Order: sequence, then structure tokens, then C-alpha cells
Amino acid sequence: MRYDVAIIGSGPAGLEAAITLKIRNKNIILFGSSIKSEKVEKAHEINNYLGLTAIPGSELAEKFLEHAKSLGIEIKQERITNVYAMGNYYSLQTSSNEMVEATSVIVASGVNFGKTLEGEDKYLGRGVSYCATCDAALYKDKVVTVISTNSKEEEEANFLSEVASKVYYIPLYKMTDSKLLPSIEIIEDQPLEISGGLKANKLILKNKELDCDGIFILRESVPPASLIPGIEMDGSHIKVDINMKTNLKGCFAAGDIAGKPYQYIKSAGQGNIAALSAVDYLNEIKNKQ
Amino acid sequence: MRYDVAIIGSGPAGLEAAITLKIRNKNIILFGSSIKSEKVEKAHEINNYLGLTAIPGSELAEKFLEHAKSLGIEIKQERITNVYAMGNYYSLQTSSNEMVEATSVIVASGVNFGKTLEGEDKYLGRGVSYCATCDAALYKDKVVTVISTNSKEEEEANFLSEVASKVYYIPLYKMTDSKLLPSIEIIEDQPLEISGGLKANKLILKNKELDCDGIFILRESVPPASLIPGIEMDGSHIKVDINMKTNLKGCFAAGDIAGKPYQYIKSAGQGNIAALSAVDYLNEIKNKQ
Repeated sequence: MRYDVAIIGSGPAGLEAAITLKIRNKNIILFGSSIKSEKVEKAHEINNYLGLTAIPGSELAEKFLEHAKSLGIEIKQERITNVYAMGNYYSLQTSSNEMVEATSVIVASGVNFGKTLEGEDKYLGRGVSYCATCDAALYKDKVVTVISTNSKEEEEANFLSEVASKVYYIPLYKMTDSKLLPSIEIIEDQPLEISGGLKANKLILKNKELDCDGIFILRESVPPASLIPGIEMDGSHIKVDINMKTNLKGCFAAGDIAGKPYQYIKSAGQGNIAALSAVDYLNEIKNKQ
Repeated sequence: MRYDVAIIGSGPAGLEAAITLKIRNKNIILFGSSIKSEKVEKAHEINNYLGLTAIPGSELAEKFLEHAKSLGIEIKQERITNVYAMGNYYSLQTSSNEMVEATSVIVASGVNFGKTLEGEDKYLGRGVSYCATCDAALYKDKVVTVISTNSKEEEEANFLSEVASKVYYIPLYKMTDSKLLPSIEIIEDQPLEISGGLKANKLILKNKELDCDGIFILRESVPPASLIPGIEMDGSHIKVDINMKTNLKGCFAAGDIAGKPYQYIKSAGQGNIAALSAVDYLNEIKNKQ
């Protein structure tokens, strides 16, 4: 089955897009890496979301989810690791290695991807991976390093340790109540560069170097240029026009990923625009058939 | 005194801009033609304003105003009839003929201005006026026609009748409980064109023609091209970039006037962007001094 629209990200932009599309009777799938948007959740108090005076972040996140739920919208708990443009549709690869098809895509994945490492783009697919489930089998009895921005990825590292001979784990967050298996070696250091020959074989950290066969970089979201081959960027943001169109037909972006300011109401507003642009695109496609 | 930012319009875009600027400690003035946004007010139920599930328009408008009030924001009940770019600031003419100065302007006046009449642009300032208070004196003992989109303008027509020898009144709305003085002649017909020589002297309606010396066109908001000389349009909308910048330095637009879709959440989002772009502009100006 092919969805009308796949939405990547469940922050304000993704949720507003989902709501708008649902009201327009579109068949959607919404991917989020967490039930609540962590960024919204952690905000102390939000003062400029018009209509909701001085609201704590957690309460705002709750209201967003209630709204989505009231329309029967579910958040699929999957990261998207790749989006392939297939001509008149898109194919999305999930972190559990499923493929999902959609006519249109809205990228609302936020800016939690951090800075790309030196050598990361070069070795992506050649020793560098964003998806443990997808690529673990390639590293049977080999040495892998996991760089992770959040505690949810500890389970992924555990899974890798069942396959690989050795797993290094570099947390880019404050570890508390680690769920890591004892066989995994935790390294508290700052990754700087990935090097190698034809394939990556070394991770250079600030204070040491790690020889390894594979490097898994597990961030809350994948950098857009790696996520969607061919997408045009404007610095670290996806380039969009006033209608939230990207350079790829049928692919829209909204929220933080589409540029500053990083504000909830701005993200929601752009989610709405992206959704209605997707509706227009679906009509266009339909009329051509 | 010069304001940092003047905001024209008190719908979702104008209110969100005001809130964002107030939080940023900017000195603002907000002009609205009514206490509540009539458009929001009249909406039956709004389903896609993220965070406020299925809310009646009147309740949403109430929440918007409460939010603004909580930050001490007042809505000045004036229409703006002209915005003049003065180099490094703007001068705004109100419908009570006051001049207000602001370093930056955010136009969020909505799309309630209707279609411009044939000949309207040509004769603006030469027999055509948008402001009774400003221009009544020019028509002492003369014949004037008032074209009005809303009942609030009936008082303006009454005022004109104290000066002019004859006032025709063409309501473009359903009249109920008219407040018009008995000397004013009501004409229920559709205005089509303004004609004349060097100055306008005739209003052509669908079913008749009216000879007159002046024509007052009183809409909820003035068409942007007439409001702000030199502003670049994109059809009937003000042309903006992704940061809500217009072609005029320091002048931003947001909401319906900046293009479709006409949606509350989109307008609010753009109001936020426009406000933060204005903040950037003010910093730029400040750093240059």
C-alpha cells in the first residue's frame, strides 16, 4: 500500500501537518522518534504560542498530542534512515529496515542531528551507518563503534553487541542508568573525524583513536543531505520556498529543519503550509493520471 | 516619539507579532480595526490550530486577546490609511489623521480589502480617498459617495454629511439597524468603475451612474499597493521571502496578506517570523549608528 503523505518528525511542524492532512482526508503515516517532542517537553515555559498564554513545555506537548489523538493520528515510533525519490513516489527506509511508500513526503525532523563529522559523508555506506537494525549483519564478529546522541540508542548498541565481536559506545549525552550490557566499552570522548582507505577503519577522537570496522552514528534524526539524496540545502537547513517546497517534486520541509527562527508557532504554521502544498501536489498528480 | 515596530492588523498574524516583540522588549504599537478579528470570530469551529482541539472561532479569538492582554498589549482602534517610507523610518497615517512614526512596520492587515475598482488607483488622491476624517474638508458643500464594506463606516458617512452638500452611501454588506442620518441617500447597487477627467467625477454602478466630486472607499483595510507606495505585490498579495521580508527595507508582511493558505496557525507562524525579522532589522540599524 502507498500512503498519500509520509511525515518525518512529530514535533509541532509534523503534528500540525498530520492534523491538517487528516482533516483533508489524506492517508498519512507519521514517524516520530519519541512519543513527545523532547525539545518541546524540556522547554520551561513558552510565552509566544498565540492562544496558549505562558504554558509549560510539557503541558504544550501534551496538548499537541491530545489534538493529534482526537483525530485518530498515531505516531509510528521509528526513525527514518533513508528517503529515496522513485520518480512519482518516495520510498522510506525505517530503522527496523522496513520500506514504506508514499506519494509525498514532509520532512519535519528538526535540527537535532548535530554537526556532521569530518569523513562522515565520505564513508556513509562504506563503514558508516545510521541504522543498527539495517546493517548489523555486515559486522558479524567485527569491531564497531556506536556514537549516540541519546539514551534510547543503548538498546541498539546492545543488539549490535550480540553480532559484533567488540562494541565501543560513545555517548554524546549525560548517561544516567545506562542500559548497556557489560561487554560494551564506554568511551567518554569527543569524536572528531572518520578516516580509512576504501572503507572507514578509524574513528579519531579528541584524546585517542579507535580502530574499528564499522561506525554507527545514531542521532535523533539523520542529517537531511544524507537522509534524502539530492535535496538542496541552504547551509544546515533544507532550502524551501514560501510554500515549503524543496527542490524535489512532492517533497516538502517545515519547522526547524526549514530554517530559523526555531519557534513552536512558526514550526506549526509551516507544518500547515507544507500539508496544504502536499494536498495541491496530490491533486496535480491525480489530475495527470 | 518613534516606535520600534508598528503592526497593522490585529488578527492572528498581528497579535503573534505583537506578543513576540513584546517579549523581546520592543516598543510597539498595534493597530486593529476591531477588538476581535471578525474573520476568526465568525469561524464556526477551527480544527487545525495545533494545541487547541476543535475550538469555536469566538473562543479562539478570546484566547488570542487574553494572551495579548496578559502581556499588556493594547489594540489601537484605528485604520491605517497610508504608510510612507521615510528612509530609515516609516510614517503611518491613521484614519483620524494622526501621524505615527516607527522604525519598522509589519503589515498583517488580512485580505478584507476586496477587489480594487476600475479607476480607483488612477484617481486615488484626485477625488478618491480612503479616509473621511483626513479628507472631508476637501469636499465642503460638494457631492460625495461613500462605498463601505462594513457598518462601522456609517459614522464616517454621517461625519461627511455635516460637511458635504450631499452624501450617497453604497453598502457592500447587509445593512441592519442603520445608523445613517436621514439626509444620506442609500443606494443598493454594485460599484464597477470610477471615471472622470483630471479628477474623478463619476461612479459607474451596475444599474446607474452617480455624478459626484469625491468618492470615499472605506474598507476594513486598504489595498496594500495603495497603503504602502512602492511595495512589491505578487498578484493580490504582498510579495515576501521566507523571512517575511518585503522589497522595502524594514517592512515585513505576515498572514493572509502575505499569501495563501488562509489559515490561522499559518498566520500566527508568519507573525512570529516577521517579528523576529524585525528584531534583526532593529539590531542592524542600531549597530550602524
